[in-house]
Amino acid sequence: MNLLLQYRDLENEIKQIDQILYGRLSQADEPIRSAAIQLLQAGGKRSRPLLCLISSSFGERDRTKAYDMASAIELIHMSSLIHDDMIDNAQLRRGKKTIHLQYNTLIATMVGDYLVAEALEIMALVEDKQAHQLFSNTLKQLAIGELIQYQNRYQLERSLKTYFKKNRNKTAKFIGLSCILGAIATQADKKLQKHLYLIGYYLGMSYQIVDDILDFSSNSDEMGKLIGQDLREGYLTLPTLLAMNDDQIYKKVHNLFKQSNQGNVLDFEDLIADIKNSDAISKAYQYSQWYLEKARQKINQLPDQAEKYIFLQLIGYLSKRKY
Amino acid sequence: MNLLLQYRDLENEIKQIDQILYGRLSQADEPIRSAAIQLLQAGGKRSRPLLCLISSSFGERDRTKAYDMASAIELIHMSSLIHDDMIDNAQLRRGKKTIHLQYNTLIATMVGDYLVAEALEIMALVEDKQAHQLFSNTLKQLAIGELIQYQNRYQLERSLKTYFKKNRNKTAKFIGLSCILGAIATQADKKLQKHLYLIGYYLGMSYQIVDDILDFSSNSDEMGKLIGQDLREGYLTLPTLLAMNDDQIYKKVHNLFKQSNQGNVLDFEDLIADIKNSDAISKAYQYSQWYLEKARQKINQLPDQAEKYIFLQLIGYLSKRKY
Repeated sequence: MNLLLQYRDLENEIKQIDQILYGRLSQADEPIRSAAIQLLQAGGKRSRPLLCLISSSFGERDRTKAYDMASAIELIHMSSLIHDDMIDNAQLRRGKKTIHLQYNTLIATMVGDYLVAEALEIMALVEDKQAHQLFSNTLKQLAIGELIQYQNRYQLERSLKTYFKKNRNKTAKFIGLSCILGAIATQADKKLQKHLYLIGYYLGMSYQIVDDILDFSSNSDEMGKLIGQDLREGYLTLPTLLAMNDDQIYKKVHNLFKQSNQGNVLDFEDLIADIKNSDAISKAYQYSQWYLEKARQKINQLPDQAEKYIFLQLIGYLSKRKY
Repeated sequence: MNLLLQYRDLENEIKQIDQILYGRLSQADEPIRSAAIQLLQAGGKRSRPLLCLISSSFGERDRTKAYDMASAIELIHMSSLIHDDMIDNAQLRRGKKTIHLQYNTLIATMVGDYLVAEALEIMALVEDKQAHQLFSNTLKQLAIGELIQYQNRYQLERSLKTYFKKNRNKTAKFIGLSCILGAIATQADKKLQKHLYLIGYYLGMSYQIVDDILDFSSNSDEMGKLIGQDLREGYLTLPTLLAMNDDQIYKKVHNLFKQSNQGNVLDFEDLIADIKNSDAISKAYQYSQWYLEKARQKINQLPDQAEKYIFLQLIGYLSKRKY
């Protein structure tokens, strides 16, 4: 099987998704139009719509509705990026100035609201109760996930349990949704739908952990971010949580958080070096590999068709992801 | 006909809506729960869900789904109040401190997002493509209306046309939606559905104008607002726009906006007195009465049943509304 060709096919599909998105967003009033199109043009991997489209190929029906759902998924993703960046006061997104900084928080709020409404307008084309229930429930989980993250900022008591709950809500359930919506759009067998949801869910859990690890890698620089950005902003992700088993590191986090929370600008370099030199990074990788393995097992049970191997190829890519 | 009794029946129905809302919101995580329940308890007239329920009585089916839709409508209304107050930096809502001031803008953003998701979860119970399309489209119009309002802040060029467009998007279409969703929920005749939409639309246009007039009345005080709050915040509503036909008043607005926009705190009392002493208030009332008359005509064409007279009673109430 020519997997390279398969991958090119997927790239064409992403182009189709982008066409739908550009078509819709270019009709919006200013400054919604400019803000949304800037975010679209800045890049992004379109992993969620891509997973939606791959999953849709396991169904019986033609894939027209899957394109709609994939576009709606990306719009929700865009909206959550805008509101998240605002809440985190992030400076850059996809290498460009974030919307709330380029415009202001009020416009960022409105653009986010508008993108959700645009996504719902697409979803309204889909007559499937289950799809609507899953969609709305995931939106709720996203809001809750954002809240958990925000409330645990600068909190040392934060446990692995809270970290994983946040990952489930903010990433895994949303990627699970992306997969199952594709399968629902083409009316795949119910059991297969659930199966694809789980693949997305496990991929999402793994993906988020790798994301949190990469925040400590020097490649962060290339993404226009400081190394250890999450930590500097008061967020404890898996590498730090694991490194905090070391009392010295725990104390450093404790001291820095105490002072940061009072608005002081501090030197995190020493702590970040400690975390990178500890075994926390490799332990965190083990967690991500565990989820990736769960995804691989589920993928292996899929019907034997080209897209099964695209999923496996994706696993290979994710296990070596460096940005 | 005992209209008083009819009205009491409606109050019972509102209680049922509130029960649904309390039931759902009390399950939310903190601080979403407290913030949302505070807004619910602070009062509000529940006019939108009420209109949804009145409209639903013109359909054939039982009204179970109408309660769902009415609750979803109120949740969207609550969400838009929270995001609006944040954008306007309003101090009080229903006599209590606004969410973004009591908590902060980030929590206000998240609570608003959560309430939309909660509304969508209710809407997902409703299998009706048209209902979903209208719902999502109205959300989009709300976001655009908010944007128009925000962008025209401190803009003197703002015309009556823009003012009415903002009213259509932010109020009239949403109240039209409230009515038609009730009618869709009980499968009223298609023509009747459209008819009820227009009743809501005209009532909404009238309602918003009266709201803008009341901003200049001394009763504003009782609502915990300053007289002329909109104007002080840089929003030109119908009374001011009409009063600006007088060159002296135009100049005063021009000067005050120019300085306010630079962050100065200014004395609006003189200008507000001028507007109140001009014929702008009575002219604005004529506009609201014109829309109310359009609504009355449509109501008169409704089938002869109790709720027709509740609508007419509502017209009587709206034409004398003082708060």
